[in-house]
Amino acid sequence: MQDAPPLPVPRDVAEAAARIACQVRRTPVMRSASIDAEAGCRIHFKCENLQRVGAFKFRGASNAVLGLDPGRAQAGVVTQSSGNHGAAVALACRLRGIPATVVVPEGAPRVKVEAIRRHGARLVRCAPGQAARDEATAGELSRTGGALVHPFDDARVIAGQGTAALELLEEVPGLAHLLAPVSGGGLLSGTLLAAQLAGSGVQVVGAEPAAASDAHESLRRGERVRGWPIDTICDGLRAELGALPFRLLRDQVRILLAEESEIIAAMRMVWERMKLVIEPSCAVPLAVVLNNRERFAGAEVGIILSGGNVDLDALPWVTAPA
Amino acid sequence: MQDAPPLPVPRDVAEAAARIACQVRRTPVMRSASIDAEAGCRIHFKCENLQRVGAFKFRGASNAVLGLDPGRAQAGVVTQSSGNHGAAVALACRLRGIPATVVVPEGAPRVKVEAIRRHGARLVRCAPGQAARDEATAGELSRTGGALVHPFDDARVIAGQGTAALELLEEVPGLAHLLAPVSGGGLLSGTLLAAQLAGSGVQVVGAEPAAASDAHESLRRGERVRGWPIDTICDGLRAELGALPFRLLRDQVRILLAEESEIIAAMRMVWERMKLVIEPSCAVPLAVVLNNRERFAGAEVGIILSGGNVDLDALPWVTAPA
Repeated sequence: MQDAPPLPVPRDVAEAAARIACQVRRTPVMRSASIDAEAGCRIHFKCENLQRVGAFKFRGASNAVLGLDPGRAQAGVVTQSSGNHGAAVALACRLRGIPATVVVPEGAPRVKVEAIRRHGARLVRCAPGQAARDEATAGELSRTGGALVHPFDDARVIAGQGTAALELLEEVPGLAHLLAPVSGGGLLSGTLLAAQLAGSGVQVVGAEPAAASDAHESLRRGERVRGWPIDTICDGLRAELGALPFRLLRDQVRILLAEESEIIAAMRMVWERMKLVIEPSCAVPLAVVLNNRERFAGAEVGIILSGGNVDLDALPWVTAPA
Repeated sequence: MQDAPPLPVPRDVAEAAARIACQVRRTPVMRSASIDAEAGCRIHFKCENLQRVGAFKFRGASNAVLGLDPGRAQAGVVTQSSGNHGAAVALACRLRGIPATVVVPEGAPRVKVEAIRRHGARLVRCAPGQAARDEATAGELSRTGGALVHPFDDARVIAGQGTAALELLEEVPGLAHLLAPVSGGGLLSGTLLAAQLAGSGVQVVGAEPAAASDAHESLRRGERVRGWPIDTICDGLRAELGALPFRLLRDQVRILLAEESEIIAAMRMVWERMKLVIEPSCAVPLAVVLNNRERFAGAEVGIILSGGNVDLDALPWVTAPA
């Protein structure tokens, strides 16, 4: 058995911030008096839905792609993604002038697949399911000689994702709680490292759909559960918690859950009150704050709004009202 | 016959900006590389959909309500509105601690009526049609002794609306064109005054639905047309050009038209590419830029995104695809 790869450390987030500053957007932090009144606390939303490619994923992809040494970079990058990570890698590679290959399973959301193509990546379709994805990815890696940039099980990606929280903590230093959605765990891991780097005592909380609660269950058991049932509307949160994120997050963060109807209601609240388009995955932290009012009462709360790529022809309250 | 009321002048916009700074949000200016590529010019969007009450209307209402002398203010304010102006007056009055009465015709959008109520105004329903609205408004004015704050035929309101363009011109001094939607004409008039105040030679352009083109026709003929057919999806643009705006705008601005399908496509483009919720009325200037590509080619273009209050249960591409 191989040695486990080294874990990223807080300092990596600071280095990522410096590396990617040239191409990542510093997104605004927004507030809503009416959502604050409803939640009973003061929420500071870091708007990564306004990031390039419409999601925080560009931060991690940018850090990984810019971090490739020149000799290695020429063969390009290979990744697998049904969504925002694929578009993020495509754009990061285009900006560096190297080829990108994205393995996309059948059934991925149309709007996200189009974004991958629009940013210039080569698409390789495969059957749904992790085995087919891994096989197709391995094939492309050996064929192209490119470098793998995994969506979350990658120290450079994790460090890059943490730069969103770092910016938020710089702008709002007095946060008591900081929430991010969790799926593979890259964003939540990076957020934890950023909080440690800031050293402000902010408590990092993961927000996960109850209908895809493998991360919650893994941290509860103290071991990664695999094959946990996942059936959520949040198309960005269907991956299982990664190995690297699991090692970083265990004993460090609490994960709180939200029901599907709570997620849809929170999503709609942000659209109506803040005039921001967010995708279902992005609404889970607000749903968690609203269903845990006592825990957050009166506090300064940070939320990473993770992304805004949603199919406008299939809005959840139109096709399946909450 | 009464003398015509005096017209507002550019200096009034500067005074309005100072008066309302305490309660109006300085909204961000956003850009989209992908929309620029599509339009063939560089567009700077002033995001008044992120203004308080979700629309620029709060600027004019704030200026008018804060401008009332203390003795007059105690009796409160009366206005008529089926939408954003009503919510704006309600909030401005609540912040000043005086009563607001809003006359609302039957059939006004639910989401907008709820906002009027949420901000604490007293609602008076009336039959649709201008005659019934005027009669109900006159009745409330004599009953309460309150002051009328008209949605657009009011110099203080016009000066307040101009502060959005003033902020944009401060932030992006090199604009060649500046577009705003036109209906009653308050926003477009204020925008013209702000451009004159800035003295930068920016060309002000009105954007109007072809299906509600009375302002275009009025400026073409050199006299206000009344009873022009109005049948547009843009619920914020169904009023006829006001008397004061007509006097300000004639011979000063050009008005360009957009078809309903072009407006819906532009609205959707802003949602998808910029992750911003905007209402149909708000999409008319972008629709005009996209259907007049030669006119704006390569230029620095400013657009006032006027508002984001839209019924999420009745999106135009769901109920009536473009």
